[in-house]
Amino acid sequence: MSRPEGVICPILTPFGPDGRIARDLFAAHARDILARGAHFLSPFGTTGEALSVSLRERMQALDWLIEDGVPADRLMPGTGLPATGETAELTAHAVRAGCAAAMILPSFYFKAAPEEGQARHFREVIARVDDARLRVILYNIPQTSGVAVSPALAARLAAEFPGTVVAYKDSSGDWENSAAVIAAAPALSVLPGSEALMPRGLANGARGTISASINAIPEIIREVHDGLRAGRDVAAAEARMMAFRKAMQGPAMIANLKGFLAVRSGDRRWLNLRAPHLDATEAQGRALAAVLDAAPAAA
Amino acid sequence: MSRPEGVICPILTPFGPDGRIARDLFAAHARDILARGAHFLSPFGTTGEALSVSLRERMQALDWLIEDGVPADRLMPGTGLPATGETAELTAHAVRAGCAAAMILPSFYFKAAPEEGQARHFREVIARVDDARLRVILYNIPQTSGVAVSPALAARLAAEFPGTVVAYKDSSGDWENSAAVIAAAPALSVLPGSEALMPRGLANGARGTISASINAIPEIIREVHDGLRAGRDVAAAEARMMAFRKAMQGPAMIANLKGFLAVRSGDRRWLNLRAPHLDATEAQGRALAAVLDAAPAAA
Repeated sequence: MSRPEGVICPILTPFGPDGRIARDLFAAHARDILARGAHFLSPFGTTGEALSVSLRERMQALDWLIEDGVPADRLMPGTGLPATGETAELTAHAVRAGCAAAMILPSFYFKAAPEEGQARHFREVIARVDDARLRVILYNIPQTSGVAVSPALAARLAAEFPGTVVAYKDSSGDWENSAAVIAAAPALSVLPGSEALMPRGLANGARGTISASINAIPEIIREVHDGLRAGRDVAAAEARMMAFRKAMQGPAMIANLKGFLAVRSGDRRWLNLRAPHLDATEAQGRALAAVLDAAPAAA
Repeated sequence: MSRPEGVICPILTPFGPDGRIARDLFAAHARDILARGAHFLSPFGTTGEALSVSLRERMQALDWLIEDGVPADRLMPGTGLPATGETAELTAHAVRAGCAAAMILPSFYFKAAPEEGQARHFREVIARVDDARLRVILYNIPQTSGVAVSPALAARLAAEFPGTVVAYKDSSGDWENSAAVIAAAPALSVLPGSEALMPRGLANGARGTISASINAIPEIIREVHDGLRAGRDVAAAEARMMAFRKAMQGPAMIANLKGFLAVRSGDRRWLNLRAPHLDATEAQGRALAAVLDAAPAAA
């Protein structure tokens, strides 16, 4: 499959003790998550602390992933910044690198800008990238970005750029919003940002999930995804998935996940986050690991 | 005076028909606003569409202003971006250029990040700039950035970096917030983002204003500022100032102001805005000009 669907991991970005991106750990994590069942990876989403990483670092690290053996056609990096020009620059770099798609936020600083102005932003990004290979995933995460991509805006962009605007990642947590996009723009792959919405979503037109938990439990989420698509009973796997999600989520979600990876891998570099976040602790990781270990085993 | 106080103009950024910053118009506007009474200029605040302009363009345009005769010691540019590293890079450039201060937003993408994480952001920016000349204006505009700089955080940073963190621009529109900062951090110059708060502010410890209207009516705002400080009757000037503000404000404020400058100057380049805003119209400018022309003349 090459269109954005299935189990897509917004991979965490590891930082070394010097604060720089830990190249070796980033590539090893990316390869591991793919090997454990993810269909695609989205580096530099919200979970990947994208907005704490500079434009140049993001380009460099994407190149590193590909040089280090991660297939470019499995990558769907986040490339959205407030400025149209920088968004186009980052997106063009991803397209030239051969990435399968780019996940783009609205221009999120000016909360009172008109929706027509957001349409202008996406239109100008697409025009500046000017490459037939571009595939855009609209990225809706209003509780963090402060600016929604409404179903009406998604439908309008899908109609204006068929074959280019191809998907909608919905991290609003609101299934009604996802359903409205599916109804308004049937050509888009709608991808809820929570795996908890997979049962409802896959039965009602959603095409997969892009969720932070896939950094920790990709095989469980893949099992639920495939089972739901095939009509199998996935109750046991679903219970583990939901127990993990419940313990992981909240304002410290990224730190919880990084703590978990530090504890499971023994690599303490996973404890490092960048401002405005605080570093993770092993205690956070142990708490999350304990929840997973206590959950009923998958069938 | 060299500390951030008085009448400070967050100057508009003009764009040419090719979408690039119009160098000649930017410098002419900056010099004009200083000549008409502003104490300082803040390029690349919210009114200057900072977050629609790339990091490299912001550095280049600041250099242009100085090369084109705007004294660096009258400049207090906005340098805040979500990423700590890029904020430090932009801030260091402003300090090296000789600017009087840098106006810095919190790291505004992650709305749920802890206040301690925002303190970490400012602390790391100051450490990376590593220059005794640095003067920081904390920039509070929560309705746009989505992240407040609380009075407690301001007080903490002022205590941790005396002589470096020197001011607080408060665009919240909430006088109680400004008063809380004045009480919690008396060493900071508190600068409400609305000239409408000058009468109350200057009588209660605020040190001036940084307001969008200064792009259009600097002499009127300077007259009110100086009159209030000297205990003169400024009722007529204040009525003009308030009539203009009422007509200017709202979601289309930047376009209203640019339309006004286009109409007054005859230079249609002022009609250009960048996404996610829409361009201004001459009708917007004429409406604002009509309000000013109809307002009672200053004494």
